[in-house]
Amino acid sequence: MIVVMEKGASQEQVQHMVERVEGLGLKAHVIVGTERTVIAAIGVKREETRQSLESGPGVAEVVPILAPYKVASREVKKDPTQIVVGGLHVGAGAVGVIAGPCSVESEEQIVQTARAVKAAGASALRGGAFKPRTSPYSFQGLKEQGLKFLASAREETGLAIVTEVMSTEDVELVAKYADVLQIGARNMQNYRLLEAVGHTRNAVLLKRGPSATMEELLLAAEYILNEGNTQVMLCERGIRTFENHTRFTLPLASVPYLHHKTHLPVVVDPSHGTGHTYLVPDMAVASVAAGADGLILEVHPDPEKAMSDGYQSLSIPQFEATMLRCRKIAEAIGKQFG
Amino acid sequence: MIVVMEKGASQEQVQHMVERVEGLGLKAHVIVGTERTVIAAIGVKREETRQSLESGPGVAEVVPILAPYKVASREVKKDPTQIVVGGLHVGAGAVGVIAGPCSVESEEQIVQTARAVKAAGASALRGGAFKPRTSPYSFQGLKEQGLKFLASAREETGLAIVTEVMSTEDVELVAKYADVLQIGARNMQNYRLLEAVGHTRNAVLLKRGPSATMEELLLAAEYILNEGNTQVMLCERGIRTFENHTRFTLPLASVPYLHHKTHLPVVVDPSHGTGHTYLVPDMAVASVAAGADGLILEVHPDPEKAMSDGYQSLSIPQFEATMLRCRKIAEAIGKQFG
Amino acid sequence: MIVVMEKGASQEQVQHMVERVEGLGLKAHVIVGTERTVIAAIGVKREETRQSLESGPGVAEVVPILAPYKVASREVKKDPTQIVVGGLHVGAGAVGVIAGPCSVESEEQIVQTARAVKAAGASALRGGAFKPRTSPYSFQGLKEQGLKFLASAREETGLAIVTEVMSTEDVELVAKYADVLQIGARNMQNYRLLEAVGHTRNAVLLKRGPSATMEELLLAAEYILNEGNTQVMLCERGIRTFENHTRFTLPLASVPYLHHKTHLPVVVDPSHGTGHTYLVPDMAVASVAAGADGLILEVHPDPEKAMSDGYQSLSIPQFEATMLRCRKIAEAIGKQFG
Amino acid sequence: MIVVMEKGASQEQVQHMVERVEGLGLKAHVIVGTERTVIAAIGVKREETRQSLESGPGVAEVVPILAPYKVASREVKKDPTQIVVGGLHVGAGAVGVIAGPCSVESEEQIVQTARAVKAAGASALRGGAFKPRTSPYSFQGLKEQGLKFLASAREETGLAIVTEVMSTEDVELVAKYADVLQIGARNMQNYRLLEAVGHTRNAVLLKRGPSATMEELLLAAEYILNEGNTQVMLCERGIRTFENHTRFTLPLASVPYLHHKTHLPVVVDPSHGTGHTYLVPDMAVASVAAGADGLILEVHPDPEKAMSDGYQSLSIPQFEATMLRCRKIAEAIGKQFG
Repeated sequence: MIVVMEKGASQEQVQHMVERVEGLGLKAHVIVGTERTVIAAIGVKREETRQSLESGPGVAEVVPILAPYKVASREVKKDPTQIVVGGLHVGAGAVGVIAGPCSVESEEQIVQTARAVKAAGASALRGGAFKPRTSPYSFQGLKEQGLKFLASAREETGLAIVTEVMSTEDVELVAKYADVLQIGARNMQNYRLLEAVGHTRNAVLLKRGPSATMEELLLAAEYILNEGNTQVMLCERGIRTFENHTRFTLPLASVPYLHHKTHLPVVVDPSHGTGHTYLVPDMAVASVAAGADGLILEVHPDPEKAMSDGYQSLSIPQFEATMLRCRKIAEAIGKQFG
Repeated sequence: MIVVMEKGASQEQVQHMVERVEGLGLKAHVIVGTERTVIAAIGVKREETRQSLESGPGVAEVVPILAPYKVASREVKKDPTQIVVGGLHVGAGAVGVIAGPCSVESEEQIVQTARAVKAAGASALRGGAFKPRTSPYSFQGLKEQGLKFLASAREETGLAIVTEVMSTEDVELVAKYADVLQIGARNMQNYRLLEAVGHTRNAVLLKRGPSATMEELLLAAEYILNEGNTQVMLCERGIRTFENHTRFTLPLASVPYLHHKTHLPVVVDPSHGTGHTYLVPDMAVASVAAGADGLILEVHPDPEKAMSDGYQSLSIPQFEATMLRCRKIAEAIGKQFG
Repeated sequence: MIVVMEKGASQEQVQHMVERVEGLGLKAHVIVGTERTVIAAIGVKREETRQSLESGPGVAEVVPILAPYKVASREVKKDPTQIVVGGLHVGAGAVGVIAGPCSVESEEQIVQTARAVKAAGASALRGGAFKPRTSPYSFQGLKEQGLKFLASAREETGLAIVTEVMSTEDVELVAKYADVLQIGARNMQNYRLLEAVGHTRNAVLLKRGPSATMEELLLAAEYILNEGNTQVMLCERGIRTFENHTRFTLPLASVPYLHHKTHLPVVVDPSHGTGHTYLVPDMAVASVAAGADGLILEVHPDPEKAMSDGYQSLSIPQFEATMLRCRKIAEAIGKQFG
Repeated sequence: MIVVMEKGASQEQVQHMVERVEGLGLKAHVIVGTERTVIAAIGVKREETRQSLESGPGVAEVVPILAPYKVASREVKKDPTQIVVGGLHVGAGAVGVIAGPCSVESEEQIVQTARAVKAAGASALRGGAFKPRTSPYSFQGLKEQGLKFLASAREETGLAIVTEVMSTEDVELVAKYADVLQIGARNMQNYRLLEAVGHTRNAVLLKRGPSATMEELLLAAEYILNEGNTQVMLCERGIRTFENHTRFTLPLASVPYLHHKTHLPVVVDPSHGTGHTYLVPDMAVASVAAGADGLILEVHPDPEKAMSDGYQSLSIPQFEATMLRCRKIAEAIGKQFG
C-alpha cells in the first residue's frame, strides 16, 4: 500500500502516518519526492488497513497494490477451473451452452424447450421457478411446481438444470431439484445468500451485478469459495451505462480480463446483455470468439407468448441457427462446443 | 401503451398486433402516420403487457404511457407523507437528521456518539450491527451485541435507532431493537427482504441501489407498501458513474424529481454519496436546500480509528459545524430542522 | 410523435395542445385512455417540433416515433455501403484492417511499421500527425512533417493512409496527403469540422464520442453526408462507463445495432476500446465475429519507446498473431479479410 | 510515480524498469514488498512518463502521484480567482447570475429578456448566436445578426454578454461583440479552439463535457491558461449517466471538489444539468448552497414558443421566483448575490 501525503504535509503528519502504519503491523518506508512524500506500507494487510489510513491527517490518498481477493485469484491457482455437471462442461477449452426460457410456465413448455435445445446442441437447461421481478405486480414464477417441471425435463433429456435461487430460505429446496444454482444480478452482493450457496455442493452460476466492478464480482465469488464451494462460474450479463439502444451494455472485454485475473470460468449472457432478440445471435458468436467458457441464452418455443422476457428470447429456429454459427467459431479457435 | 410498427410493416402485421392487443383485454386504436403506423392500446394493463407485445412481428418498439408503480405515486396520494418515530420527523416540512458511526464498535463508542450528535441536534442515531461488506475478509459487525449497544444508546439519549437489516431471517431480531429498519443499497432489489420488512410495523429507510433508476426505486418501495407498511422513506445515496474523484455521484435532482412523483419523503446520504469527509458538509447543506426531508450522516468520535468508512465520517466538531450551516439554510427556506 | 398529457390534464389543456400540433402543420389525433389522454401528431416534422411541444401546459412527455437521421438510415438505402480506398475495402462482406502507430514519430518508424503491417495483411496505415492530447504539456505530433512521412510510407508500400484532422483550417492540408480523414472521438460533435470534411472527396472515419448515443453518432455522420460526401465509415472505439479495469468499455453490440439501422460500414478500435495491450487481440477477434467491417489497431515496432499510447499498442509479432486469429474467424463466417 | 511490478516479476524485469526510470531522468527507489516489488520514480515528469513506463515487461500498473495540471492548481495559487466583467462578479464570495434564452431569436426577444432578467437581479445575459445542434436539420442560430442583437441588449441594459463560440474562425468575430466567450460542452476538448480563446483577452466560460473527468476539465482549462488568458470560469452542466428521468445528471459535489483543487471559480448550469423546467429552481438553490460562484440559467419570455430548449427554460416569473429563493440562501451563507 502506498500512502500519498498531501503537498505541504508537515514532518509531524508524515511521522504520525509512519506510526499508524507500524501500529498496523506493517513496515513503513518513507520516500521523499520532488513535490510530495509517500510512505510505502509493506506487509499483507489489505482492504481495512487502507480505509483506516485514508482518514489520517495530511493524507491525500492511499493506493492499494494488492488485489483484495485471494482464492479466486490466478496468482493462487494457475490452471483454469473446469466445471462439469452432467453433460455440461464449462472452462479449460470447453464452451458449455445453457439454454431455455426466462420462466418455467408449464410442464409442456419446459419439456418441449428442453428437447429442442438439446437437439440443437445445448448441454444444460435454464428456466426460472423463482423470479425476481422489478414490479410486485409482475408474474413471480411457479416456485416449487416450476422446480418439479424442470426435474421432469431433466429426466426426459438428461440436460443439467440451471435455475435461480433468490433467498437463503429457498436454498435447500432449489438445491434438491437443480444442478446449478444461479445467483441473479440483483443478488450478487446478497452476502448471506452467497454464503448459503457456498455451503451446498452444487455448482453456482454467479451473475455480475449491473454496476459491479470486476473486483466486486471476484469478491462476491470469494464469499462462495470461502465457504468451501469451488464450483463457481462467473457470468457477464451486461452493465448499466448511458446507452439506451440496448437494455444493458455487454462489455466482452470482461472475458479476457477475467481469464487474466482468475482461474474461474466465464459465461456470457447475450440475452440480458442486449435485451433485444435481433442482437443476440451476433453477440453469442462474438462471445465465443472472445474466449467465453459458456453461453446462457433465453430460448422460448413461442417468444410472443412468453410470460417474461419475450423481447429478448430466441425462437427454436433462431437458437438452432445461432448454435451453428457459434460452433463454426469454436472450431476455428480449437474449442470443444455445446 | 403505444405499439410503434416498423416502417414498411405489412397490413397483416398490423392486423396481427391489433388482435394481440385486443386479446389482452385492451382497446386497439390504429393511427396511420406519414411514415409509420402506430397502435394505441387503451386500458389499465402495464409492464407485462408491454413485454408481451414487444416481440410481435413488425413491431419496432412499445412505448409505455403509465408509470408502473401505484401506491407510491403522487397521483394516488397528493399530500406528502410524514414519518414520525420518537423525536424523528421526516417529510412534510420537517427535515430529520440521522447521524452516527458506520459500524457499532463498542458500547462506549456508540453511547458517546449518540450523546454528541443529540447535543448537536440530531434526532436519530444510525449504526451498523449487521454490516454488508464487499470482501468476506472485512469486519462484518457485532450483530446482536451491536443491537444491544444501540438500545443502550437509545435509553441514554432518547434518539430513535436506525440500523440495517440484511436478511429475512434477521428481520424479527433487528425489529426488536430498532425503530427504523434500513435496507441497504445492495439489497434494494432483494424482494424477499422488502416483503419481510413490509410485514413489520417499523418505519423503513430504503436506500437507492447504485444503478437503480427512479422507477426501480419506486417499485422497490411498492413491494414494501404492497405488504401494508406505509412508513417508507426513500434514500438517495449516490449512483455509480464514470466519475472517480468521488466514490459515487450524488444526483440531488432526485429530490425534486421524487417529490414530483411520490408522496414518500426523501432522505439524502452525503457520506456515501461523496465518499470523502471534506465533501460531506457542502453536500449536506446543498441537500437541505434542494428540499431533502432528511439527512443521514456518518459521524465517528475518532474517524481515523473507525473500523469502517473512516474516510467519509465526520468528527464530532465537523458534525456540529455542519449542523449549524444546515440549520441556517433550513430557516432560510422555512423548514423545521433536526 | 405522441404527446402524452398528464393525468388530470384539463380539456382546455388538451385543446391547447391540439391547436399547437395543428399550428405546426401536423394532424392531431386525440386518444382518450383509461387514465390519460394522448395526442398523436401525424406528419414529417421531427426534433424541433418535439422540443417545442414538450413545454406545453399539462404535457407529461413527448414520445418521438421517427428517427431523426435520414440519409444515413437503412430505411433510405437498403444495401450496405462499401468504402474502397486503394487496397482498403470496408463493408459489404469485406473486413478492412487499418494498423499503425498512435503517432508518427520519424520517417524510419512509420516506414518500418508500414512494411511490417502490410506483410501481416493490413490494407491501410494509421498514424497521427496532428495529435489531440488531454494535456497541453504532452507531445502534439509532428504536424505537416508527419504527413510527409506518411506519404513516404504510402509510396513504399501502397497502403492507404488514415490520419486525424483536428481543425477546419487543417482540412485542406491533411486531405492533400491522406486517403482517409479521421475525425477523433473528442471532435465527433465539432460540427464545423464535420461540414468541412463533408466538402472533401476523401473517405472519412468518424469515431464515436465516448458518451455519444447511437443516434448522436448517426446524426454526426448525417452532417458529413448532408454536404455530399457519402464515403463515411463509423468507428466504435469504446464508451465511458464506471468500469475502471479497462480505459473505456467496448460495446460490441454497436456493430449489429448499426448494421440494423444504417447502411454505413462499422469499424471497431479494440486498442482505444480496451486501453491495454493484453486485451486487444481477443477483442479484435470478437469484433470480426460480431460482424465488424473493419479493424483499426495501434501497432508500434517498440511499444515501450512509443511517444504515446504504448500501453495499448501491439508489437509487430503480436499484430501478426492477431491477424492470423482474425483471418480464421473471417473465413469461418465467409468474409474477405485484410 | 509508483511502478507496480507483477507478482513474480523477475529480477531482470525489475532491473530493466529501474534503468528505464533512470533513463527518463528520474530517481528510482526499489521497495521489495511481501508479495510484490514496486519502484518509486522520483522527479517532476508526468503524464508521458507514465504511459511510457506502463508497457514495460513485468509491469502491472503505474500509479501517478502528481496531478497533471499546474497553472489551474490550488497548489500554485492559493487565493480564489474572481472574474469581473462589467457588473458580473464570479468567485471569491460573489455569486454571479447569467440568464437568458438558449438562442437569440430576434432583437425584440433578446432585449425584452435582458430587461426582465436584469430587473430580477441577473448581472449577465446569455444567448446563443452560433448554435451547435445535434442534428444538421435543426435551427443553427442567427450568427452575426444574433451577435448584433446581443450588443443592442447590452446597450439597453448594461448586462455583460455571454455567448458561445464554436470554431476558431469565429473567435475574432464573437470576441468583438461578447464579453465572455463560452466554450460549449461538445467543444471542451477542441484544443485548437481552447488555444484560440486563450489568445483573446475576453473572459471564458468553459463547460464540462458530459463524460469529462475533473482532471480532463482542469487540463482543458490549462490549455487556455497556458496561452496567457487567466480569466477562466469552469462550468458544471451535468454528466451522462444511466439516469433517464433527467437529461443529464448534475453532480453538485463538483463544486466543493473543484474549490479544493483549483482557484478558478465554478459556475453551475441547472438548465442543462436537469433538462426539465420543473427541476431547475430547486437545483439552482442547491447549487448556491453547495458553494457555486455563479449560475447560468435559460430564461425565455415564452418557453413554449422557444426555437430551442423550451422544455428546460424558465419563464420570466419562474426566474424571478428562483432569484428570490437563491438570494435568501446566499444571504444565509454570507455571499454577495446577482
